[in-house]
Amino acid sequence: MTYCLAIKVEEGLVFASDSRTNAGLDNIGSYTKMFTYNIGDRAFVILTAGNLATSQAVYHQIEKDLESNDSEINLNLCQDIEAVADYIGKISIEQQSKNHDPTETIDQSISLLGSHFIVGGQIKGQDPNLVMVYPEGNFIYVADETPFIQIGETKYGKPILDRMIFPHTPLGDSARAALLSFDSTMKSDLTVGPPIDFVVFKKDQINLNFQDQLKLDSPFFKELSSIWAEQLDSAIHALPKFNWEE
Amino acid sequence: MTYCLAIKVEEGLVFASDSRTNAGLDNIGSYTKMFTYNIGDRAFVILTAGNLATSQAVYHQIEKDLESNDSEINLNLCQDIEAVADYIGKISIEQQSKNHDPTETIDQSISLLGSHFIVGGQIKGQDPNLVMVYPEGNFIYVADETPFIQIGETKYGKPILDRMIFPHTPLGDSARAALLSFDSTMKSDLTVGPPIDFVVFKKDQINLNFQDQLKLDSPFFKELSSIWAEQLDSAIHALPKFNWEE
Repeated sequence: MTYCLAIKVEEGLVFASDSRTNAGLDNIGSYTKMFTYNIGDRAFVILTAGNLATSQAVYHQIEKDLESNDSEINLNLCQDIEAVADYIGKISIEQQSKNHDPTETIDQSISLLGSHFIVGGQIKGQDPNLVMVYPEGNFIYVADETPFIQIGETKYGKPILDRMIFPHTPLGDSARAALLSFDSTMKSDLTVGPPIDFVVFKKDQINLNFQDQLKLDSPFFKELSSIWAEQLDSAIHALPKFNWEE
Repeated sequence: MTYCLAIKVEEGLVFASDSRTNAGLDNIGSYTKMFTYNIGDRAFVILTAGNLATSQAVYHQIEKDLESNDSEINLNLCQDIEAVADYIGKISIEQQSKNHDPTETIDQSISLLGSHFIVGGQIKGQDPNLVMVYPEGNFIYVADETPFIQIGETKYGKPILDRMIFPHTPLGDSARAALLSFDSTMKSDLTVGPPIDFVVFKKDQINLNFQDQLKLDSPFFKELSSIWAEQLDSAIHALPKFNWEE
């Protein structure tokens, strides 16, 4: 399983993804699900969950198109984030169709071979943007009022985001909430695992300077996780008592 | 969807279930998923998630067997919680088989018609106990180290339990954690809804005195939910700052 999360607040964007891949609990591996690109007037982060072979093939094709001199389209030639999403949707469909079994329906094929992608970033002169590309190749924008997108194992880490992430949430708090969302998910589900690839993107600074790979024993993550556990413990003791308690 | 939760700590048992039933988001209903029984030397609580017709038929059969004078087995005749679990498993299979389509495999039939049950309580002279009955009719005990059982929409409300519920957790804290688990689930998933049927059972007191039906605007639940929201908000501000924050 996989967990990827992206947040869009007024001050910027936050991206995080785990690195555990598995084909069964007795066969786990580690592979980054984050693709970053930052050249010239643009910076993008792409996250993926689903069929790992499809996801890897898409990332490989993105790289090939960037290296080739005669690409019709690549990340540099996209006019906006929507164009990036269309481009990734198109490659994703192409890669799935290579392995499509003609005796299967498209639905069956997508459920076996499909991947979701989160695409976010900014091109100079435009606003930051964040979208999710479906395995079918089309995409949706992040919601205005609940400005985050999750893919993969999304449920364990959603309550903290529902409580904390709003358009006006400061970028630092958003980044901490993202890590807490991963902390909760990793505590409850062994198929989501470290390290966490983590990028924080300040609006209008077209760079990915705040990029990190956090392990469970990274000092920052360890401190965050242990202070959070203490805080929750004291929070529960601040709650009202039942009338049947002495 | 449904969410039911039972906790077994050293001091006793906690049971909670939501009341939303649905056959689609445009057709929601409310129905209690909790069955309680407290006569003489025994007190039981039964919770259910799955096919509502099967669940209702099981509860109805339990009542019929209690009222009938010539039942071979009923809740009064069970020697221990294991016998209650076997009895419920047996009725559950019987009710499913009434509607079993012979062209379907047992797996298909169970996934359409099956229900899970949580059974807990105490018979005087025995220890309190807690088990989960599968749609196939067999059952498992609650785990020693993570002493809670969830059925239905379990993921949103699991992180808080993973952090807080251990064998030595006081009964009051366990009951508060149960309500927080419901609070998180209801905030993240519209298919889990109030009122919450709620029972707290002190070890060796063979009664269900602490039984309540909590609505969202019940004073206790409202206070708990709002203090928790405040506490989380201040907890996140106690976390370490990133070096890129001013």
